[in-house]
Amino acid sequence: MKTMDVCKDIDCVRAFIKSIKQQFKTIGFVPTMGYLHEGHMSLVKASKNMCDITVVSIFVNPKQFGPKEDYSKYPRNLERDLGLLEEAKVDMVFIPDVGTIYPEGFSTTINIGHLADILEGAFRPGHFDGVCTVVTKLFNIVKPDKAFFGEKDYQQLKIIQKLVKDLNLDIEIIPIPTKREEDGLAMSSRNTYLNQEERRRAGSIYRFLLKAKEAFENGIKDTDEIIEYAKAVLDVDAVDYIKIVDKETLEEKTTPSKYDRILIAVRIGSTRLIDNIEI
Amino acid sequence: MKTMDVCKDIDCVRAFIKSIKQQFKTIGFVPTMGYLHEGHMSLVKASKNMCDITVVSIFVNPKQFGPKEDYSKYPRNLERDLGLLEEAKVDMVFIPDVGTIYPEGFSTTINIGHLADILEGAFRPGHFDGVCTVVTKLFNIVKPDKAFFGEKDYQQLKIIQKLVKDLNLDIEIIPIPTKREEDGLAMSSRNTYLNQEERRRAGSIYRFLLKAKEAFENGIKDTDEIIEYAKAVLDVDAVDYIKIVDKETLEEKTTPSKYDRILIAVRIGSTRLIDNIEI
Repeated sequence: MKTMDVCKDIDCVRAFIKSIKQQFKTIGFVPTMGYLHEGHMSLVKASKNMCDITVVSIFVNPKQFGPKEDYSKYPRNLERDLGLLEEAKVDMVFIPDVGTIYPEGFSTTINIGHLADILEGAFRPGHFDGVCTVVTKLFNIVKPDKAFFGEKDYQQLKIIQKLVKDLNLDIEIIPIPTKREEDGLAMSSRNTYLNQEERRRAGSIYRFLLKAKEAFENGIKDTDEIIEYAKAVLDVDAVDYIKIVDKETLEEKTTPSKYDRILIAVRIGSTRLIDNIEI
Repeated sequence: MKTMDVCKDIDCVRAFIKSIKQQFKTIGFVPTMGYLHEGHMSLVKASKNMCDITVVSIFVNPKQFGPKEDYSKYPRNLERDLGLLEEAKVDMVFIPDVGTIYPEGFSTTINIGHLADILEGAFRPGHFDGVCTVVTKLFNIVKPDKAFFGEKDYQQLKIIQKLVKDLNLDIEIIPIPTKREEDGLAMSSRNTYLNQEERRRAGSIYRFLLKAKEAFENGIKDTDEIIEYAKAVLDVDAVDYIKIVDKETLEEKTTPSKYDRILIAVRIGSTRLIDNIEI
């Protein structure tokens, strides 16, 4: 029985990938920050279905966290993650340490412009530069044919698609629908931060999104009115933003159309959560 | 007899490269801005010697020119260039237009930090961002095993090496020594801007570099004194900078050591010229 390869350094990945390419097999890639949940595993399943070989990376990328954000307390459980990936018959897992990805003297930044400055970018300056930089590096190391990203981080998905287009990366980005808990809460490694009472209230985010969609379907055509209609169900401590945007450009819509996307970022206690659906 | 392939769009390049990769042949790549001279052709020769297949690109990259620089008047002669490359038995030439490399909505920038801010970067803000961005794109399109860069643009060479390292591009950068005219002037497409009198004076740049090297070899150990010793031979209209720097970090040396590099940028009339040698 073939066991899963685990690579800690880049040479190990390069050797693995080279042997795969020599067999003309296709490579699917799922980049993650670990602490895997069903959302991640649905990306893995999609990759297994669409590609000959599936590679997963686990790397909590310091460059995509702001100085006051949760890098150091971001949840980690490598042993459990490796068990889940082995069970899912992933072919190779890349688990670099920070010095492997950012060796002494590293200094390069990739900025994709406006799309990285709005929404999450406005609340998390530099976040998407960190995402674009690490994803480009991982793409160059793993050289996948297809890479899988969850729709839960919708702006990230659109940014990665733009990155691939602008830099002519020969990789197809495959979006995968958000996985949700029974009460509708989008699965996220950060949900582990929530205490029982906060967890209960977090279910209201998805109920809010559904209510907004219902408002739109009922004929309310103004964004402010849609939000007003739905807001009563939202039980959170603070709202960073609620926007209805064009699904490609992410430009704000005051009078939304079908296929637009409603995006929300909230805080419950000290936890920041994001979600989105098509309206 | 096999003739040279000429691609104008990216799909054409991708199809060519795919067929080469399927034969497990190695690809050498020479990115140029055209108006080819012996310097370029020495890169082509090196690629022909080291790789199975040689690809050359000709693209005058608007993003590496400042708003007041010579983008529009940069010399172009595509017909002559294609003739030279055909004669040199280049396998494929990529001649994209600006809209192919920078389609509507393009907005991504690659910045490699400090190394891009000093020397040429200080005089040409954004120049190396433009270089890094286009080179990354061309690398992702051509997917070479090796890429060839002239030492004449020494800072550019070091920046490309840093870019490849920081972004984990799986490409070996091969530096090629500067080709010179009989009087020592480094070959450059921009030499065509010089009138006869300016052209004569331009020969003094290399004489200055040799004189500085001589000063160092004669035991003068202070950069200012080395420059002072050699400066009498330099017959130019303005000096942008003369620096002796570490050959890897490009950090300025006040008391140089063997293998350091002396870099010079001058203006003669309205033409800006750069050169460098090992000291």
